[in-house]
Amino acid sequence: MPIQVIAFDADDTLWVNEPHYQHVEQQFCGLLEDFLPRHTVSQELFRTEMDNLSLYGYGAKAFMLSMIETAIRITEGRVAAHSIRHIIDLGREMLHEPIELLPDVQAVLDTLQTQFRLVVATKGDLLDQERKLEKSGLASYFHHIEIMSDKKEQDYRKLLRHLEVPPEAFLMIGNSLRSDVLPVLNLGGWGFHVPYHTTWEHEKIDAKIENERFRTLETLKDVLPILL
Amino acid sequence: MPIQVIAFDADDTLWVNEPHYQHVEQQFCGLLEDFLPRHTVSQELFRTEMDNLSLYGYGAKAFMLSMIETAIRITEGRVAAHSIRHIIDLGREMLHEPIELLPDVQAVLDTLQTQFRLVVATKGDLLDQERKLEKSGLASYFHHIEIMSDKKEQDYRKLLRHLEVPPEAFLMIGNSLRSDVLPVLNLGGWGFHVPYHTTWEHEKIDAKIENERFRTLETLKDVLPILL
Repeated sequence: MPIQVIAFDADDTLWVNEPHYQHVEQQFCGLLEDFLPRHTVSQELFRTEMDNLSLYGYGAKAFMLSMIETAIRITEGRVAAHSIRHIIDLGREMLHEPIELLPDVQAVLDTLQTQFRLVVATKGDLLDQERKLEKSGLASYFHHIEIMSDKKEQDYRKLLRHLEVPPEAFLMIGNSLRSDVLPVLNLGGWGFHVPYHTTWEHEKIDAKIENERFRTLETLKDVLPILL
Repeated sequence: MPIQVIAFDADDTLWVNEPHYQHVEQQFCGLLEDFLPRHTVSQELFRTEMDNLSLYGYGAKAFMLSMIETAIRITEGRVAAHSIRHIIDLGREMLHEPIELLPDVQAVLDTLQTQFRLVVATKGDLLDQERKLEKSGLASYFHHIEIMSDKKEQDYRKLLRHLEVPPEAFLMIGNSLRSDVLPVLNLGGWGFHVPYHTTWEHEKIDAKIENERFRTLETLKDVLPILL
């Protein structure tokens, strides 16, 4: 069965995202280096994020809360209120960040939209992801925008049902093997991986994927000769 | 045209919500009463929430961040880190709160589901609203769950398009005139108001509604004799 629907991950697939988080994290670690070495602060933040994931979900507000919790914990309550205000300001700047599209995104969508139904499948804060899509100028390419609280098999199953497309006719393209590729392959769909130069620790997996519906692309535009 | 789709607001329409926020707010005001009188803290919190609404959206994480920002601002940075930790704990408790259904909800849904397509249209944190619906045990009544970043006319227009239902065949039931009733009436749909004993200041409006598609119900079950 030929592919009918192509779903794109958004953050670090259509536009730059993770570098903004890393930039904020570096400033966060600098803010606390009187208390602990930077790399320890970074490890503690990651631990907080993982502990909070099931309660807060993904996105900038969860990240802000996790930074504040980490700052209070690792300083044993000695962090000053103005440092917490600083952390909040870092998070707010991130929410105001302009959107920087990755190379060839517009050209690829332009070409694919004539032959496929294009959708976005992204996780994160509802409002923030909507705002980023709006700012990206890409919204009109997409037939449907799905903002998901998670990207596990059951979440994709719901999306496929909603789109009324069988898995064999569904391709997901994204930078995370764990969230964009593996669950879709497991359902019998297609998964193309476009690695980004930097990946959040949580999205990393150690797996060798052998599947005829799997491809690794060097850049997004490599999808064109495969599909057309 | 007869009504085909009935959309329910969730918070304070299907289950108790605002009292949890008010309970947390009271504890928050108590925490800061060495700095300012409780009612002033409450006013300052509301101001922060309104200032943050377009950036953070609705829901518990936005509320937590607004409480923290308010605490730092009104104490001019003198609030202790352990008080901020306390604020975070209040927010986390709210996210863990069990769901308490409002009277007759299950019976009303049970009766209506045989004749109408039922959906949920709610705003708030994506993950939190999904979790509340899951905990409510009501998910199976609904054909579709729409978690919206806002409930303005344009948001309902998108929902109607998605549900493929004309406004005249769409009824929205909820406790907020501003978010549940007025925008739907303006689109030509039906809006039934079920007031809840307490309403968030932001959702209050001062309007007299004259519209043949509008009803005020004393309790949710009053919808049955109107529709059946």
